[in-house]
Amino acid sequence: MTLIANPALPETTENADWSRGRVGIWLIGARGSVGATVAVGLHAVATGVAPPTGCATAAEDFASVPLPRFAELVLGGHDVSTVSLTDRAARLTEGGMIPPRYVAAVRDELASTDAEIRPGYDPTAHAGAQIDVVERLAADIVSFRERHALGRVVVIDVSSTEPLPADRDEYHDPDLLAAALADPTKAVLPPSAVAALAAIESGSAYACFTPSAGMSLPVLHDLAEKAGIPFAGQDGKTGETLLRTVLGPMFNARGMRVLSWAGTNLLGGGDGATLADPEAVRSKLASKTRGLKSLVGDHIVAPLHIDNVPDLGDIKTAWDHVHAEGFLSSRITLQTTWSAYDSMLAAPLVLDLARLLALASATGQAGAIAELGFFFKDPWGSEVHDFAQQTTELHEWARSMAAVL
Amino acid sequence: MTLIANPALPETTENADWSRGRVGIWLIGARGSVGATVAVGLHAVATGVAPPTGCATAAEDFASVPLPRFAELVLGGHDVSTVSLTDRAARLTEGGMIPPRYVAAVRDELASTDAEIRPGYDPTAHAGAQIDVVERLAADIVSFRERHALGRVVVIDVSSTEPLPADRDEYHDPDLLAAALADPTKAVLPPSAVAALAAIESGSAYACFTPSAGMSLPVLHDLAEKAGIPFAGQDGKTGETLLRTVLGPMFNARGMRVLSWAGTNLLGGGDGATLADPEAVRSKLASKTRGLKSLVGDHIVAPLHIDNVPDLGDIKTAWDHVHAEGFLSSRITLQTTWSAYDSMLAAPLVLDLARLLALASATGQAGAIAELGFFFKDPWGSEVHDFAQQTTELHEWARSMAAVL
Amino acid sequence: MTLIANPALPETTENADWSRGRVGIWLIGARGSVGATVAVGLHAVATGVAPPTGCATAAEDFASVPLPRFAELVLGGHDVSTVSLTDRAARLTEGGMIPPRYVAAVRDELASTDAEIRPGYDPTAHAGAQIDVVERLAADIVSFRERHALGRVVVIDVSSTEPLPADRDEYHDPDLLAAALADPTKAVLPPSAVAALAAIESGSAYACFTPSAGMSLPVLHDLAEKAGIPFAGQDGKTGETLLRTVLGPMFNARGMRVLSWAGTNLLGGGDGATLADPEAVRSKLASKTRGLKSLVGDHIVAPLHIDNVPDLGDIKTAWDHVHAEGFLSSRITLQTTWSAYDSMLAAPLVLDLARLLALASATGQAGAIAELGFFFKDPWGSEVHDFAQQTTELHEWARSMAAVL
Amino acid sequence: MTLIANPALPETTENADWSRGRVGIWLIGARGSVGATVAVGLHAVATGVAPPTGCATAAEDFASVPLPRFAELVLGGHDVSTVSLTDRAARLTEGGMIPPRYVAAVRDELASTDAEIRPGYDPTAHAGAQIDVVERLAADIVSFRERHALGRVVVIDVSSTEPLPADRDEYHDPDLLAAALADPTKAVLPPSAVAALAAIESGSAYACFTPSAGMSLPVLHDLAEKAGIPFAGQDGKTGETLLRTVLGPMFNARGMRVLSWAGTNLLGGGDGATLADPEAVRSKLASKTRGLKSLVGDHIVAPLHIDNVPDLGDIKTAWDHVHAEGFLSSRITLQTTWSAYDSMLAAPLVLDLARLLALASATGQAGAIAELGFFFKDPWGSEVHDFAQQTTELHEWARSMAAVL
Repeated sequence: MTLIANPALPETTENADWSRGRVGIWLIGARGSVGATVAVGLHAVATGVAPPTGCATAAEDFASVPLPRFAELVLGGHDVSTVSLTDRAARLTEGGMIPPRYVAAVRDELASTDAEIRPGYDPTAHAGAQIDVVERLAADIVSFRERHALGRVVVIDVSSTEPLPADRDEYHDPDLLAAALADPTKAVLPPSAVAALAAIESGSAYACFTPSAGMSLPVLHDLAEKAGIPFAGQDGKTGETLLRTVLGPMFNARGMRVLSWAGTNLLGGGDGATLADPEAVRSKLASKTRGLKSLVGDHIVAPLHIDNVPDLGDIKTAWDHVHAEGFLSSRITLQTTWSAYDSMLAAPLVLDLARLLALASATGQAGAIAELGFFFKDPWGSEVHDFAQQTTELHEWARSMAAVL
Repeated sequence: MTLIANPALPETTENADWSRGRVGIWLIGARGSVGATVAVGLHAVATGVAPPTGCATAAEDFASVPLPRFAELVLGGHDVSTVSLTDRAARLTEGGMIPPRYVAAVRDELASTDAEIRPGYDPTAHAGAQIDVVERLAADIVSFRERHALGRVVVIDVSSTEPLPADRDEYHDPDLLAAALADPTKAVLPPSAVAALAAIESGSAYACFTPSAGMSLPVLHDLAEKAGIPFAGQDGKTGETLLRTVLGPMFNARGMRVLSWAGTNLLGGGDGATLADPEAVRSKLASKTRGLKSLVGDHIVAPLHIDNVPDLGDIKTAWDHVHAEGFLSSRITLQTTWSAYDSMLAAPLVLDLARLLALASATGQAGAIAELGFFFKDPWGSEVHDFAQQTTELHEWARSMAAVL
Repeated sequence: MTLIANPALPETTENADWSRGRVGIWLIGARGSVGATVAVGLHAVATGVAPPTGCATAAEDFASVPLPRFAELVLGGHDVSTVSLTDRAARLTEGGMIPPRYVAAVRDELASTDAEIRPGYDPTAHAGAQIDVVERLAADIVSFRERHALGRVVVIDVSSTEPLPADRDEYHDPDLLAAALADPTKAVLPPSAVAALAAIESGSAYACFTPSAGMSLPVLHDLAEKAGIPFAGQDGKTGETLLRTVLGPMFNARGMRVLSWAGTNLLGGGDGATLADPEAVRSKLASKTRGLKSLVGDHIVAPLHIDNVPDLGDIKTAWDHVHAEGFLSSRITLQTTWSAYDSMLAAPLVLDLARLLALASATGQAGAIAELGFFFKDPWGSEVHDFAQQTTELHEWARSMAAVL
Repeated sequence: MTLIANPALPETTENADWSRGRVGIWLIGARGSVGATVAVGLHAVATGVAPPTGCATAAEDFASVPLPRFAELVLGGHDVSTVSLTDRAARLTEGGMIPPRYVAAVRDELASTDAEIRPGYDPTAHAGAQIDVVERLAADIVSFRERHALGRVVVIDVSSTEPLPADRDEYHDPDLLAAALADPTKAVLPPSAVAALAAIESGSAYACFTPSAGMSLPVLHDLAEKAGIPFAGQDGKTGETLLRTVLGPMFNARGMRVLSWAGTNLLGGGDGATLADPEAVRSKLASKTRGLKSLVGDHIVAPLHIDNVPDLGDIKTAWDHVHAEGFLSSRITLQTTWSAYDSMLAAPLVLDLARLLALASATGQAGAIAELGFFFKDPWGSEVHDFAQQTTELHEWARSMAAVL
């Protein structure tokens, strides 16, 4: 058996008016906190109720880049939750995160979007071969694309962080994987990877906003490349890590030697609870520290904590303490305290990724798009973590894509 | 009368071995806290007792740039103070800033450098025409250059912040200025500008590390350009402003809207006392805020305070509170607390400026060197405040200079 | 003419059931941010919609003290604003301060309370003698008391901070004051003092929650004592100063020597705008620092700033930096960042003061109640600033009052 | 066998001049960072080179209490380290903690004190029954007392934190303990408990400044009571916990509900390395949180971390984030950053404890002195954690002791 022999790619769109065809965003975890914020926000921005503040692609630098307009984005997704988007948004409003006026303004659109959400893959409930799940999920995406006559779909994983699975042979060999997927007694792929495989099979572009396995398994990475889809990851760079990749290069440019960079993250909400699981948090911590070491050196001491503090709700507060050595062994310390609603940081980046991956897809890009490392803690296809450099690379890439069209 | 008809330029050095000729650093305010730290540090680095941590030009990026070596830098300067470098260094050691081992290791060198310091211009003590002062100061510099057979000298103003003088016609017209300087009843130039004029007259490169008038008066700026010397300024970007020009672009790149950026600086030492004078502080505050507004927009509210807190000694602590608007009107706050010995941040940059202006001079650059904006709150010849962009421009410029030689 | 010859004291209530008679709260500035928060909060607590969190008198320590119950408190007041409480509350909800559910739950009560608000004294609009204003205001209070058959009324000034008036003879001599008040060409009392005089004339207890003059003018203080009313002040201790009076004694108890205590307050809202006026802020800054010096010594350096940052809305953020000397001249630093809605801190204390002054009145206390210093930056009748000591004194006083009844 | 049948109590001193007799301080861990700081500090204070800043007992409140004078305190101790006090002090000076002038001033005294230090108990090196160790250690203390003709000795444990031992029957039954101690194949007591037993056997007062087992084992606690010695513990309250027990009561007094209190401690030095051991840190974390819960309620979420960051050296930096609920469910947050040399905080408290336990001993107090809870995270004999209350109790106790003498 061959996996993804014929990915269900959309028919080619003419370049000339590609961005006039509407683009689908298919969220893995569409009813979560990020999913609901994307939904409220997209509709509010598309209808002019809210400005696209927080979207990188709304900045002047992208003015000449032919990205799909917000009003041309159509939202759907998978979720194992049955709490409707309307109810989820109401909870986020009650918790103080989303101002009531925005939810009120897009009430109808939220309900419509909720009707586009299909049951996700719940390994505790499913009996049977995983390949059946992959095919069902891929069919949902293709159906969504056809139902709305979308030029293309971008699948973005915004679901809860999973524990990283132990490595296994199936993650490196497509034939072994195919056999395992067909075996109803086995469940070798974690849910995020099942979703990534469905994205490939549906011929959609893909981004992994979480630190979960997703498309990072080597076998999926290869399959995606062969399928000719563009993809990007991994783990959205929203707050503390963003700051670190901005500040680290400053110390370097000034010849200072960073000795330690300690961090503590406090958060409640669903994410806090998920990350209270030491297994789940391990992958998160690893991807947070990797970029830092790459920037300021492996010698640094970088203790890092993520604490679940339920009473803090959806606000995430991160404290960092940096100790650098300066001239004549002098001590330089920097403390930063960053406080924001994490889903409010993530949601506009999800919209950015959808727009940019749609552009990549339209211009025929395939494989890991290194220039989208701008959005991630652990960029695929790139060793660049310096945020200013990532910004330059993203802008140049977007302009070069515009030139192609 | 024509000012600076014949600047006392050094004889042209052959390009081939220019950097083998030694370079002089002439500090205005050589016996102050920064001056003493430069002296201890330069000798410690030159003799291998300390690494050049904190020097931007010691980084890998400059490895192929033919800068003068630390051991080829010779130090002298002007100061109105008669406290010797040795005594000043002892005080800084007692206050905990300079580790005793460094001072002990360079005891002899400090004494030798102190012997190169000449009386500065004290307007309260001087009677007579200012032109006489200019000539005396210029002669001191020329004498220093000849005494040590230096290929070139870089004059760097690290003296205490002066109140900004009110504008006057003499600051715009060289003939009016010449007449006023020759008039013993007038003292139209503040001391920093007298020193800058002496630098021009001596044919030295020049950098203004303070927010004082210095060479920023239009008439002096023009004279320096005509004299063909390279120069750079203004007001060293060492701590809080450095952070701001690193963090501001991050908010922009992510499409966030910065609404306010409040700051409080606490410092003691001599600088604290100087800046307790509301007149003196005004120029400092203005140059600190200018770059910020240029980066994130004129709409921001940016209250800024500098408080003299003598018990804090030479450590400067700066707290900033940033409020940005994100997606769906959400609130993002960032607090930073930066704490460091201000003179320890300044001193290595003084060495960097000396090395880079020597390079500029050797390659025949004249006028304001925009690419040295990397070092300043208020860059001359450039509107760029984004630190990452400044870093890129500096590196490219240095490489281009290297290519010229 | 004699001022306040016959203050309109309420008839004596029997001790036995004093607290069963309802108590009026008459707010000067009833339609401001604090006023609206008191109104929403009192009704929400009285109806059981919200717990009395933030009220000191709701704690276990007061369980045996016969204070009026929240449901027995009746609200009215003066204000120069014509924005209704309902509209003000809606704005505070929109700004994120008051959760919508509370406003919704007390909609009717808010409207009723708004109907109890009478026009305040606006010196720019009033022509005529100030005594006429005093009498009108006093009559409003007496009418409120009689209309609702209240056992007693507590007048509390929560209006915007005024500039402190220059001292004058009338502030020390009741006859001079009486003559000036009767003179239609003069307006010697600032509005807060006119209101305080009306409180005296109406025979009400009084508390000054602001740093404005209010009853602090010596002549009014004396009149209040003679009138036999209990009163308390001044300037509510809600955030930064509260912290200082908690932390200062810690350093003392451990034999550390506090050298400096620097502070910056950022706030928007109406209070931010008021305090942007350097004259108005002066009285605030003075009362903030007075307690600190009394606690840790006059030698400390204590720069203090209040910045108006409109985008921060009703949230106040205060950063303090404390430097203390420890053993063997070692450096100890403490930074605190306090962030809260200022009106949310003030409102429950207003309710506490109303309950406690009602108790004082019922037990026949007159003059400045020193034990209420617990609530104030600048306690009347007490030199105690140590918050723990104030807490002990308040609890003991309340128990002693309970014993009297 | 009966343990401590005849504790080697000093002969009774006449009350009248008790405090004129000199007092010994015997430190367990005398050559560690705290030990060396106590040594330098005591000699510097005793000789008038440094003021007793940081000593609680040097404050005005103790002026009338007949405590031994600093010059009457004699220092000795046990340590497993052979690094001399002189060398240890030199390292602490090099690291920036102790100013060189103090070490220079007490050079001779340091050497004399070092000569009073005897080898401590190293379980990895000792073969034989633990009772032999107890007896050797007790004999060292008695010999020290007699050699210097000391009126009394106070043993204070300032050694590195040990892992807490698992509970066992011997910790509850003196006969079982005696049998085990006599058995050369067993080593049931951890070193801190061996030292505590030696203190009892030598008839000395005792304080446990660490979270190690020490005298907290029930069997030792009972033996100490029977021996009639006064003792106090446990785990010095120097920084973060001190702040918490000062701030917690503030929230209570104002009726606020603390929901979470998260903390991160960064430290290097020897203590950082010790606490990097998760087993050792567990006892520390437990004692830090116990008081907090007792003050603000068991419901709070209180994640707490201690990170070993070697580059930070002897400075400890603690960040706390407090979230409290205020009026109408409003959010109050407080962040504190405390930064200090931990040994500089501990050393003066060690001197305080020596002086106060000498007083307790002179007045015939025996058992756990609850009023010394002021000094500890985990007070023995007391449930009081509120620092202000502890301060009041300490002062009253000291005055009552003075009255006895």
